[in-house]
Amino acid sequence: MKFVCKQSDLGTNLSLVSRAVPSRPTHPVLANVLLSADEEKQEVSLTAFDLSLGIKTTFEAQVETEGTIALPAKLFNDIVSRLPEGEILFDDEAKDTAETSSESAAIATLTCATGRYQVRGMSADEFPSLPTIQEGQSLEIAIDVLMEGLRGSLFATSGDETKQILTGVHVKVHPETFEFAATDGHRLAVTETASHPEAEGEEEAPKPSEPREFFEMTIPARALRELERMAAMGGKGEAIALSLDPGQIAFELSNQRLTSRTLEGQYPNYGQLIPRSFERQITVERRKLLSALERISILADKKNNIVKFSIDSEGQKLRLSVEAADVGSGEEALDAQISGESLDIAFNVKYAMESLKNLGSQEVQVKLNTATSPVVLTPLGGTKMTHLLMPVQLRS
Amino acid sequence: MKFVCKQSDLGTNLSLVSRAVPSRPTHPVLANVLLSADEEKQEVSLTAFDLSLGIKTTFEAQVETEGTIALPAKLFNDIVSRLPEGEILFDDEAKDTAETSSESAAIATLTCATGRYQVRGMSADEFPSLPTIQEGQSLEIAIDVLMEGLRGSLFATSGDETKQILTGVHVKVHPETFEFAATDGHRLAVTETASHPEAEGEEEAPKPSEPREFFEMTIPARALRELERMAAMGGKGEAIALSLDPGQIAFELSNQRLTSRTLEGQYPNYGQLIPRSFERQITVERRKLLSALERISILADKKNNIVKFSIDSEGQKLRLSVEAADVGSGEEALDAQISGESLDIAFNVKYAMESLKNLGSQEVQVKLNTATSPVVLTPLGGTKMTHLLMPVQLRS
Repeated sequence: MKFVCKQSDLGTNLSLVSRAVPSRPTHPVLANVLLSADEEKQEVSLTAFDLSLGIKTTFEAQVETEGTIALPAKLFNDIVSRLPEGEILFDDEAKDTAETSSESAAIATLTCATGRYQVRGMSADEFPSLPTIQEGQSLEIAIDVLMEGLRGSLFATSGDETKQILTGVHVKVHPETFEFAATDGHRLAVTETASHPEAEGEEEAPKPSEPREFFEMTIPARALRELERMAAMGGKGEAIALSLDPGQIAFELSNQRLTSRTLEGQYPNYGQLIPRSFERQITVERRKLLSALERISILADKKNNIVKFSIDSEGQKLRLSVEAADVGSGEEALDAQISGESLDIAFNVKYAMESLKNLGSQEVQVKLNTATSPVVLTPLGGTKMTHLLMPVQLRS
Repeated sequence: MKFVCKQSDLGTNLSLVSRAVPSRPTHPVLANVLLSADEEKQEVSLTAFDLSLGIKTTFEAQVETEGTIALPAKLFNDIVSRLPEGEILFDDEAKDTAETSSESAAIATLTCATGRYQVRGMSADEFPSLPTIQEGQSLEIAIDVLMEGLRGSLFATSGDETKQILTGVHVKVHPETFEFAATDGHRLAVTETASHPEAEGEEEAPKPSEPREFFEMTIPARALRELERMAAMGGKGEAIALSLDPGQIAFELSNQRLTSRTLEGQYPNYGQLIPRSFERQITVERRKLLSALERISILADKKNNIVKFSIDSEGQKLRLSVEAADVGSGEEALDAQISGESLDIAFNVKYAMESLKNLGSQEVQVKLNTATSPVVLTPLGGTKMTHLLMPVQLRS
C-alpha cells in the first residue's frame, strides 16, 4: 500500500475513529485502527470497532498502490497529530525484506517534510468487519432534528451498566414525529421533534416524507454521543441515513458511518409516569433559577444535595433554601408567576440543574401536585420537551 | 464586624490567598482564611497560612464595624465566587443570640442582591500570625527582573521532597546582578539578570542602586510559583520589596504580602559543574528542534524517553532518532551550524524539551565535549541563561 494524503485529513479522521477504540480491548486487534486505501476511488478509509460501537470514515488521497493494514490506534494517532502540516507519504511495503520475513510484521512508514516514522502494525485479516444492515427499516433524519432530540434526552440516561436498557436513549419513530426518551430511574426526559426541520424563510420546502410505519429502538448513549459529535461536523442542511436491523443500527453521513448494537429488553412505559393534570404551576426565568441553584448547590453539597423549594403563592416568589447544620445555610428568592396554593417541596439539586441546563428556553414552567408526587418541567415555547423529576423527602 | 464590598474584590482576593491554604491542614484552623476589617483604613484583609507559605491581601471596603473572623476557605471561596456581581454586605454579628450562645459559634452572613448565605466560622484568635521580618537584608526587585529570573529557573527544581534543598530556587544577590539557579540532580538551570531592568526608549532611567552586600538564599519553588502569579497581576513598572531574616523571607507588592520559610542547608556548588571549554558547538532554531523532539517523544515514551542526537558535522545536520523495538522507530533531521567533529549522544527527551521551552530565544546553542560529559544549552541573545543537561548512555 502506498498513498499520499494531507496531514490534516489523516489527523482529523484518525481522531474521529479513535473514539471507537476500546480503552481495554478484549482482543489485541481491537486496539488498532484499520487503514485501507482504494486505488480506484482514490480514497483512504479508517475503521475502529469495539464490537459494540464502530466508526468508519473515508477521505481523499492519491493512492498509488492499494492495500490494508491494522495499526495501533493510540500510537498512530499520537504521531500523526504532531506531524507538521502538509503532505504525508504512507508506505507499508517492506524494504528490508531480510528483517521482515515473517508475515505478521507489517510496518508502516510515514514520511513528512522533517522526518520519517515507522510503526509496527498487524495484518488486516484479523480485524472484524463492521456489521452491515441487511433489510430492516430505514429513514433519513435531518441533522438539526437529530441534534435537537439528542440534546433533549442524552443527559438523562443512566451511567449504571447494571441497568442496561437505561443506558440508552429510546427513540420512537412516528409518521410525522420522532420521540427521544431517557431515564435513569430518578428523572425522565422526553423530547418530541417534527420528523422534518421547519422550513426557514426563503429555504426550499422539505420534501414530503413517505408514509412510514411506526418503529422504536433503544440506542446506547455512548454511540449517540459520538453520533452527536459526528453530526456537529456535518453541514446544516444535511441528513443522516439511519438503518435498523434487530439488534443493530447504522448511521451514515457523507463520508462517515457509525454502527452500534441496540439495547435489548423492554423500555419502561414512561408515558404513564407523566401526570395529566396539575394543582400548581410556576413560571420562572430559566437562567435566574439555574444561577440561584448553582450558588445554593455549594451548601446543598454538604447536605445530600437536597434543596428546598418554597412556593410562595401570596408573594409570587420562589424561595430556595438549604440548612446544612455545623456548616452554614443559604437562601435565594426569585420572582415567579405562581398559580395554585403555596407548598414546600425538595429536589436533588444536581438533577434540577441538569434539567434546567437542557431546557434551553428563556422561561420554564414547573408543574406539580403534592410534595411527594412527580413534577414536570417544560420550556415555554420551542421544542416540545417534558422533564419529570421526583421530589425527595424533606427532613427538618 | 460589618462591611460592604464588591463581589469581584472579595472573589479575586479570596482565590489568591486560598492558594496558601493547605489541602491537608495539620491543624483545623489552617483550613480557614482569616478575614479582618479595618474601620480607620476602610479596608478588608484576607490571610491564609500553611505554616510555611503565607499570603495576605488587602482591598477597599466600606467598613461600618471592624472585627476579625476565621472562615472555612474552600466553602467561603466557593460561595463568593458564584455570587452575582455587585455589592455584598458582610455581617458577623449574631442575631439569634439564643441559638449562638457559645463563643466559638461565629457565623458570617453574606447578603447579595438575590439571596443570603451563612457560613459558620471560628474565632480569629486561634489563627497564627504571619511571620514578620525584624532586621534582615532588604531590597527592591523590579517585577520584570523577578519574572525573568523565575521563568529561567523554576522549571528545573526538584519535586522530590526528600531532596529538600533542591525543591527551591537558589538566589544570589550580587551588587549589580541577581543569579537564579535550580537543579534536580539531572539538569541545572542558571539565569543571571541585571538587578535593574534596562531602560526602554523614552522611559525614565532606573534609579541607581545603593551599594549592596552579597547575600544568598534558597526559596521553596511553591512560594515562588505563587509569587510569580502575584507578580503577573502587578503593573509593568512596579517593584517587589524583598526582606530576609535567617529562615524567613517576605515579598511585598502594593496590597499583597507573601511570606515563606527559606530552605536550610548548603546549596550545591553548581558553578563547578559547568564546563569552561567545549570541543563542539551546534546552533539551531529553537522552535524547530522543540517540535521535532515533541514528535519523536511519542516513540521515546516507549523506550525510557531516550532520544539519540546524531551530530553530522559534514552534512551540517542534527539528526534525532529513536528505535523502540516491537513498536516502531522515528527520525528527524534539522539544519544546524555545527563546529567540531561528528558525534552521537543521547538525552532524556523530557529534560531536553523543558529546557528548550524555557530558553525563549529564536536560536539556541548546544555546547558539548564528549558523549558522556555535561552539555550546555544557551539562548543566542537575550537574558544570560545556562542550562546544563547530563547525557544518558546510548544502548544499541
